[in-house]
Amino acid sequence: MLRRVLCTVLFVGALPSLAEASQGHISVVLLGATGDLAKKYLWQGLFQLYMDQVSSGHSFTFHGAALTALEPGQRLMFDVLKKLACPPDESPNRCAVLKDQFLKLSQYHQLKTAENYTVLNREIETLLRQEGLKEAGRIFYFSVPPFAYTEIARHINSSCRPPPGAWLRVVLEKPFGHDLASAQQLAAELTSFFREEEMYRVDHYLGKQAVAHILPFRDQNRQFLDPIWNRHHVERVEIVLKETVDAKGRTSFYEQYGVIRDVLQNHLTEALMFLTMELPANVSRAEEVLQSKLQAFQSLRGLEKKSAVLGQYQAYASQVQEELQKGQDYISTTPTFAGVVVHSDSLRWEGVPFLLTSGKALDERVGYVRVLFKNRAYCTQRETLRDAGHSQCKAKQIIFYIGHGALNTPAVLVSRNLFRPVMPEGSWREAVGQSDLHIFGQPLSDYYVYSPVKERDAYSVLISNIYHGRKDFFIATENLLASWGFWTPLLDSISHQPPRLYPGGVENQHLLDFEMVSGEVAFILAEPVELLNPNKLMPNDYRTIQSKFRQRPLVSAWSEDLISQLASDIEQTASRTVARSGQFHLALSGGSSPVVLFQRLARHHYAFPWKHTHIWLVDERCVPLTDTESNFFSLHSHLLQTVRVPYFNVHPMPVHLNQRLCVEEDRGTELYAKEIMALVANASFDLVLLGVGTDGHTASLFPHSENGLEGAQTVVLTESPVRPHQRMSLSLPLINKARQVFVLVLGRGKHDITALLSRVGHEPRKWPVSGVNPSSGQLVWYVDYEALLG
Amino acid sequence: MLRRVLCTVLFVGALPSLAEASQGHISVVLLGATGDLAKKYLWQGLFQLYMDQVSSGHSFTFHGAALTALEPGQRLMFDVLKKLACPPDESPNRCAVLKDQFLKLSQYHQLKTAENYTVLNREIETLLRQEGLKEAGRIFYFSVPPFAYTEIARHINSSCRPPPGAWLRVVLEKPFGHDLASAQQLAAELTSFFREEEMYRVDHYLGKQAVAHILPFRDQNRQFLDPIWNRHHVERVEIVLKETVDAKGRTSFYEQYGVIRDVLQNHLTEALMFLTMELPANVSRAEEVLQSKLQAFQSLRGLEKKSAVLGQYQAYASQVQEELQKGQDYISTTPTFAGVVVHSDSLRWEGVPFLLTSGKALDERVGYVRVLFKNRAYCTQRETLRDAGHSQCKAKQIIFYIGHGALNTPAVLVSRNLFRPVMPEGSWREAVGQSDLHIFGQPLSDYYVYSPVKERDAYSVLISNIYHGRKDFFIATENLLASWGFWTPLLDSISHQPPRLYPGGVENQHLLDFEMVSGEVAFILAEPVELLNPNKLMPNDYRTIQSKFRQRPLVSAWSEDLISQLASDIEQTASRTVARSGQFHLALSGGSSPVVLFQRLARHHYAFPWKHTHIWLVDERCVPLTDTESNFFSLHSHLLQTVRVPYFNVHPMPVHLNQRLCVEEDRGTELYAKEIMALVANASFDLVLLGVGTDGHTASLFPHSENGLEGAQTVVLTESPVRPHQRMSLSLPLINKARQVFVLVLGRGKHDITALLSRVGHEPRKWPVSGVNPSSGQLVWYVDYEALLG
Repeated sequence: MLRRVLCTVLFVGALPSLAEASQGHISVVLLGATGDLAKKYLWQGLFQLYMDQVSSGHSFTFHGAALTALEPGQRLMFDVLKKLACPPDESPNRCAVLKDQFLKLSQYHQLKTAENYTVLNREIETLLRQEGLKEAGRIFYFSVPPFAYTEIARHINSSCRPPPGAWLRVVLEKPFGHDLASAQQLAAELTSFFREEEMYRVDHYLGKQAVAHILPFRDQNRQFLDPIWNRHHVERVEIVLKETVDAKGRTSFYEQYGVIRDVLQNHLTEALMFLTMELPANVSRAEEVLQSKLQAFQSLRGLEKKSAVLGQYQAYASQVQEELQKGQDYISTTPTFAGVVVHSDSLRWEGVPFLLTSGKALDERVGYVRVLFKNRAYCTQRETLRDAGHSQCKAKQIIFYIGHGALNTPAVLVSRNLFRPVMPEGSWREAVGQSDLHIFGQPLSDYYVYSPVKERDAYSVLISNIYHGRKDFFIATENLLASWGFWTPLLDSISHQPPRLYPGGVENQHLLDFEMVSGEVAFILAEPVELLNPNKLMPNDYRTIQSKFRQRPLVSAWSEDLISQLASDIEQTASRTVARSGQFHLALSGGSSPVVLFQRLARHHYAFPWKHTHIWLVDERCVPLTDTESNFFSLHSHLLQTVRVPYFNVHPMPVHLNQRLCVEEDRGTELYAKEIMALVANASFDLVLLGVGTDGHTASLFPHSENGLEGAQTVVLTESPVRPHQRMSLSLPLINKARQVFVLVLGRGKHDITALLSRVGHEPRKWPVSGVNPSSGQLVWYVDYEALLG
Repeated sequence: MLRRVLCTVLFVGALPSLAEASQGHISVVLLGATGDLAKKYLWQGLFQLYMDQVSSGHSFTFHGAALTALEPGQRLMFDVLKKLACPPDESPNRCAVLKDQFLKLSQYHQLKTAENYTVLNREIETLLRQEGLKEAGRIFYFSVPPFAYTEIARHINSSCRPPPGAWLRVVLEKPFGHDLASAQQLAAELTSFFREEEMYRVDHYLGKQAVAHILPFRDQNRQFLDPIWNRHHVERVEIVLKETVDAKGRTSFYEQYGVIRDVLQNHLTEALMFLTMELPANVSRAEEVLQSKLQAFQSLRGLEKKSAVLGQYQAYASQVQEELQKGQDYISTTPTFAGVVVHSDSLRWEGVPFLLTSGKALDERVGYVRVLFKNRAYCTQRETLRDAGHSQCKAKQIIFYIGHGALNTPAVLVSRNLFRPVMPEGSWREAVGQSDLHIFGQPLSDYYVYSPVKERDAYSVLISNIYHGRKDFFIATENLLASWGFWTPLLDSISHQPPRLYPGGVENQHLLDFEMVSGEVAFILAEPVELLNPNKLMPNDYRTIQSKFRQRPLVSAWSEDLISQLASDIEQTASRTVARSGQFHLALSGGSSPVVLFQRLARHHYAFPWKHTHIWLVDERCVPLTDTESNFFSLHSHLLQTVRVPYFNVHPMPVHLNQRLCVEEDRGTELYAKEIMALVANASFDLVLLGVGTDGHTASLFPHSENGLEGAQTVVLTESPVRPHQRMSLSLPLINKARQVFVLVLGRGKHDITALLSRVGHEPRKWPVSGVNPSSGQLVWYVDYEALLG
């Protein structure tokens, strides 16, 4: 059959293609040739490729393949092929000829066994030999579920590689894993069969014309963007894909993935990278683009639970129960809506929120990337007298409109008070004519609007790029793993979090609106009662309780409330102390519990008298201060680098002297003790913050050691049972001289020691914390419910 | 006459006033009783006081006084008094009675000589004795030009003080000086006659109902404002007073003052303070308010030339020429329009721009204080489906509308998506009813709108507050001096700067629009040619010149431009170095020249990669780091406390070890050398900034000493000819290993050494700076015109 097909092509002869067929032959193998994606986009994309490249000098054959047996497979495939369409600007005659040729160049194969692959390879070789054609390359398009990737890859690698001199390109469709570990495993398997340059991972968003134009736009408009494409000028960026459809019929897939894996990890993240990466010198060089992207990934601040708001449309649960045959008690926490705030800590973007939002069952179908600039102008003339076109007091935006929505076309919009953008004339044209459309808060006439000269389907664009070997339109392995590395911690932390339920469609009203607070996001409206998830995990209405613990005041609450109370109490103590004595000496402990406190102090206590506060360490690990294990390093990262404590008032423990750590003869303890004596009146700290270990240690005073429990030495070297073993610590007598001591105990893991401490007396040798007993100062216990109640 | 008047009052008897006259008698003396202000506001305000307080238990007499002789003065004054009006809600009968009484209680005095004051005092005493009244107090209202203040004050102090037990209140009208020095002088003079609590300095803006309500509003709405009244939530604040009138007829005053002294230094600054100050526990306690205000003043960042844009309406020049009999060649640089950006470096407000704007001959008359909040919300529903009332995506604002403009009434407006404010019911009421007015970008219906139940003239409010002794409504001496201290440097720096000319009225169009750039402001539109001031005083078109000095590149300009160039060059070097090697090692010199550079870097170079910069000292004085003489202390105050260099990256010289300074055996030099070796690759700094002393020293390497000029020692102890003698310094060989060395030379005082250095060769023993000669690095001289040209 192949023979006949090629003869026909030779016969048609008049077509220019064969005159230059010296470029060689390309075989395209579409695996999953009768599946949904193939039917909907891929065959059409391949036909478009053929139409575009028929006169390129390459000859083509197209091999559909699937597990289905030959005859039914052929039938299914040719049913699809018959429906292929030419673009509207193609003449019907030429269209008919091209389509006819395409059909004749296409054939179906059953590819199931190793033998099948060997046969396919032999057929290609035979054809080429018979026709005297040089082989240019082979494209294998994997439109199959990812569990089949490895097997197919093995077969291709062992039996279907083209001869030396010709290239191999394998095209892979997502999902490329489910989290970092699975993505790494899949990548490792594929890498054992293919070289990096042979793999083309599709993210069809990179074929969307507006997305694909982000980098060229930044490149071509450098003169305008250079001064403003940064945190000083950009207020925020929104990257949005809203859908009206829901997951019905696809829940078996969706229930495993959810909106973050389905849309944010790939599509929206790629757009994010195009926006945030530093522009390489040559934006069409895949390797340069990749390196810039990887750097941009490294600058992203890690996501936490509160970086995201999650929703699930109400009908989802019953759809899952029905489609997956689950019982009524099956609760899905799979989000179908997510709003995530991403921050980059690069110098360019620090502090600018990037909001990534996507969801199903929303009020409209639309996709866009919106860069909103800060308004830095003051317009002296009153509003009604301002010249709309030139006013600098109007919003300034650049929007890459991906499609659908009010515009219903891909577009690039630039506010007229920003600049008239440079756009490639051949491919984008300015939209003219009147429209009373309002978009992103402004009339359309406020923007320069450009749309593609020829609107192209994403898959056509991508298939053309595969043909041209434009790897910058595909996801490199490193890029993929960087993205999973970024998203996986969030996915892990929310895996059991119940999403907010929403009715779907326009009924959602303001239910999914969210806002940014201190680098986090939260829904604006309180959870409405009638939609409340009946299985809410954590009740919120506990109050801070006050009582006694070990004969001293106890403050207890859920950890978040407790921290907020503790931070306020510290600020109040600080303000009073500064008012009284002009300075405030605060000694802080290391460990994980204080981190949330540090963050709270850094973000919410603007009136804290930092300028008059001296920061001391309660204890330190014998590591360099720049080591991430160092207590001081943690204190610095979470608090000191944000607030303004004068350099002179910061007193890290001198664990690192003479290029060595905690060596007795370097006299670090003496040095610190002298510093305290010199600055702190009576060596009596205004406030000492302590924690408690599960073994009852506090500061770095550990059980079963006399060290630091009594005596005149105020700063001591101690041994921890866990690494790093060497520690420096304030002594118990020094701690007990403080005017105020707060002990913070958080988490279920501390319940046993808390229970024990509530019973035992003063036994510092067994439980050093039981020796904390300020001689004339105040001691307050801050214990959260989990530690207190288990 | 007085006798008769009081008898009449006694006769009227039925009025409740005398029933409780046991509160005592108050004498009000209005100096300048026939002047403009008295005619327009003060008599009416006094009449209002009388109406309000007629039943308070106090009795009153009102004494108009002026330089005019008795008869014509009486006539003039009673002409004014006859026109006094009652408020519309007063019954005509009662009004007539009250007015009649008021007239009878008022009399005119010529107050010119010391004798006149003695007579006045005697008359008051006689009256009180005759009527058997206890004296409660005396109010002297100075509605006279300030040059007369001292003389009048002396007379009052020597002859007109009330007896012990009764109070004295003197009321003063602005201007209170012309700059800090004159304000200090005037304040000192007044203080020699009056105690602080006796002086009531009027800023009539504090009597404007909307301005007066700022603090109470903040107090009563603490629950809503506490979380949002800070830099994390406030986008910007606008404090605006626009006038349509020009200065015609008043140029003799205006030409000396201009818009900044006339409006910004007092009215707008007071509003600024009400917004930025920390709320005292009790907002009606004058002393607490004053202390908070003074603290807020201390947090204000100093103003520079570029903190302001200035304008002058075109007709002003000819008005001045005409009214002041100046020739055609007289050029006025007095601004009639100013836009100033003010920053507070408090933790609460850091980074929030406060725009103070005022001008004459603008398009409308209006005054307002507008607090615009950041938009932190993302609304998932599309715009057309959003519920206008509840959408968090609309602008959030709080506006204190002072008056005139579109609303034409004082008002407080709060966006409905913020909160429903608590307002004192008796004095403010919610405006209801429809309006299609748009204000500050939104329909009026988007706001809660409150206006005063009773609109009161500012002077009535102020006179009532004088009566009640509410000192928080007046400007304390410390407050006044703090304000002048804040404004005077700007006034000095712009005194010769030509303002932009504007046509006036609606013709101004966008000519006066300005924008904020890196903490400064600039007009948005380029200066239009046809309006260019032909006699621009200060040629701005000097270019930074580039040439050679000692065979090395020389950059020269006026010092301000030079510093700005140097700062940019350092930033560029830093960014490139960080891009290349991940870190930037910068060694900085002490002395006075770098201070302006430090300030410039701190304020204008937001993109500087501080996080990756290491700061080293070129030299240090042997004093504690917290000593104001310390180079590090200066560096810290002017740069480090503002930018975010990690603690670990800051490397002060160890001049203070073991509680003693620069003792050889403490090995501070070795310690620093080791630190450099450990962190700086090849001990080759990326950039060393040096200065030059008049004796040719650089770093702390002084003439006629071998110390540090050659040899292997990289850090040395040296002796300075001036105190403090002991120094620590990098050595010449270490400096010459740097990749880049910039030498900064500023000021006429350096001209001789500059001239000398241009001639001599390599003679480091005589002139250490001549030994600066990086072996493989680059050396650039930054020398200002004064140093270069003398």
